Amino acid sequence: MKVTPWEVSGDVDYDKLVKQFGVKRIDAKMRARLKKLAGEEHHMLRRDIFFSHMYFDKILDAVEKGEPVYMYTGRAPSGPVHLGHAVPWLFAKWLQDAFGCKLIFQIPDEEKPMFKKGCSWDDVAKWTDDNILDIIAIGFDPEKTKIVIDTKHASLMYKTACRVAEKTTASTAKALFGFTDSDNVGKYFYSCMQSVPAFLPSILEGKRTPCFIPCAIDQDVHFRLTRDVAEKLGYPKPSTLLCRFLPGLGGAGKLSSSEGAMITMTDDPKTVRKKIMKYAFSGGKETVEEHREKGGDTSVDVSYQWLTFFEKDDKKLARVKKEYESGKMLSGEIKQILVDKVNELLAAHQERREKAAKLVEQFIL
Amino acid sequence: MKVTPWEVSGDVDYDKLVKQFGVKRIDAKMRARLKKLAGEEHHMLRRDIFFSHMYFDKILDAVEKGEPVYMYTGRAPSGPVHLGHAVPWLFAKWLQDAFGCKLIFQIPDEEKPMFKKGCSWDDVAKWTDDNILDIIAIGFDPEKTKIVIDTKHASLMYKTACRVAEKTTASTAKALFGFTDSDNVGKYFYSCMQSVPAFLPSILEGKRTPCFIPCAIDQDVHFRLTRDVAEKLGYPKPSTLLCRFLPGLGGAGKLSSSEGAMITMTDDPKTVRKKIMKYAFSGGKETVEEHREKGGDTSVDVSYQWLTFFEKDDKKLARVKKEYESGKMLSGEIKQILVDKVNELLAAHQERREKAAKLVEQFIL
Repeated sequence: MKVTPWEVSGDVDYDKLVKQFGVKRIDAKMRARLKKLAGEEHHMLRRDIFFSHMYFDKILDAVEKGEPVYMYTGRAPSGPVHLGHAVPWLFAKWLQDAFGCKLIFQIPDEEKPMFKKGCSWDDVAKWTDDNILDIIAIGFDPEKTKIVIDTKHASLMYKTACRVAEKTTASTAKALFGFTDSDNVGKYFYSCMQSVPAFLPSILEGKRTPCFIPCAIDQDVHFRLTRDVAEKLGYPKPSTLLCRFLPGLGGAGKLSSSEGAMITMTDDPKTVRKKIMKYAFSGGKETVEEHREKGGDTSVDVSYQWLTFFEKDDKKLARVKKEYESGKMLSGEIKQILVDKVNELLAAHQERREKAAKLVEQFIL
Repeated sequence: MKVTPWEVSGDVDYDKLVKQFGVKRIDAKMRARLKKLAGEEHHMLRRDIFFSHMYFDKILDAVEKGEPVYMYTGRAPSGPVHLGHAVPWLFAKWLQDAFGCKLIFQIPDEEKPMFKKGCSWDDVAKWTDDNILDIIAIGFDPEKTKIVIDTKHASLMYKTACRVAEKTTASTAKALFGFTDSDNVGKYFYSCMQSVPAFLPSILEGKRTPCFIPCAIDQDVHFRLTRDVAEKLGYPKPSTLLCRFLPGLGGAGKLSSSEGAMITMTDDPKTVRKKIMKYAFSGGKETVEEHREKGGDTSVDVSYQWLTFFEKDDKKLARVKKEYESGKMLSGEIKQILVDKVNELLAAHQERREKAAKLVEQFIL
């Protein structure tokens, strides 16, 4: 297993990650507090998809007292947005609605050219424009959401990034991210820019407003660095809310856009069907006879796994599980259920995406 | 001897530095070409104060063909500007007049907090405003000079700095600057921002206008890095024109504002007199009798050394040398000649400085 912000491979053991990263499990008490505040429980919490955190109790304290909090998440563009990227954003949208809080959406457009071989600055510029449409299409509140783009908003961010850098040694960067002397110096500095949105409200408004960051667990390491320096700079430590990876269609690991088999937010219904039918790893048996007899294995079936992320209806999900495991439902049938669910989700997304272009200016800080 | 952009100590051996840094001596031929183009020879060239360069012949080629060139120099504020800082600027002003070229004056206001213990960001902000008045008071052409401040103009610079960083490994930064893993990551990234003004005309105007940088020799190492990456990014390599350090009043090394004994651009005539009389290291003899008999040693006398930097009149300088070495002129007398010269220079500077505040806006990019 390897889990860094730039590579996830092998079978991810989340229990091990929680220990390794020194983060906390989201427990029943925290879920209950959140449910009470939001008026409902998000299925990604109930299903342990958002499963761990750091200091999120501080955020709940503030919200319970009616004090302002704000949220920060992000996206480093180098290709189309896919469903894996959308997982924390869908959750963030729900949180924004629940808390009525501001959101800073960072686009670190310098990340990919510095970290990914063969990724050009021109490609990133193109994908930045494209990805912004998907971000807006998630449905964030245009009054409460601002997109910051690292190279465009550097005048706002660079000084604070330098203040973070001043407190961060090369040793620390090596220990946190596994860099060697052969890595470029841009990588060493990069996490400092990642820290800045966590302090932006303090900087812009002069208040110590606490910040929380919903993201996949591989990103927590950036914010470990941020937490280490926050108080030295007079800012509150940011909290994180961490989710599992949406598995790739082929199975294990993180749904990576580097692999052929992914579903992007702009795929049309036919493409979605073709990809799921062709690539989604099946927990079904070799033959229909054997399947009818022994049933499918939902613990490895990617279609079922994806439904836990995207099908909100617990009863429907339970029925699918029961029928698939009993052998009543065949692999082709569970795949079709996923196809319909994904296409439903994408149809609504793509409709909002059509209207996003004229909102871009409003969303950019 | 130690010569880095952040520390100069010991007896500086310039011949050794030329070899160590792999730069070239300015020879008679280059001086003649420059004299022909400028219509006169600057005394700092004649006296070997500007004594070495990299690729400055390319700049002369361009100027001879009537092609545009531009100049870049800078200042990292953390205290008042002193005469040592002004040396390359006075020369730069002469070059701007001679070539009619544009000048980008960079203020890397992130440098000192990241490199100098106890230097706060607030101090730097204060000294930035102050130092800009001295920069303007040098007399640069307001139509052709733009001041860029790293944190203020980061939106213009950061992306290009990242492109430089992408091509620069931590190993390279260690080899060039002597960093270790205990140094902060801001130091590793810093030189990348230093590179950017060398490419700004290419970026802003889309032309490959060649750039040259007059500065003290300790700064060349930044531009060695810049030259290494320039062509990989499609920009011309910047040239440098390198000068010796104005010795400290106490003697050897670079005139550092960390030492008590320096003359700042805002010192009043009485302060100048007091500092020179008290601190300027003398090449005179112990007693008047011995001095009259054996004469003073101009090779170590700081007043004489300073006159080579600031007294343009060759005949006057030769007369001082002759009289001081013969014993006709006493230490107190040569000091008084320096006092008068420095006060003449500062009076004119301070008069321009009074009027500088209302030009600031015009000078800032």
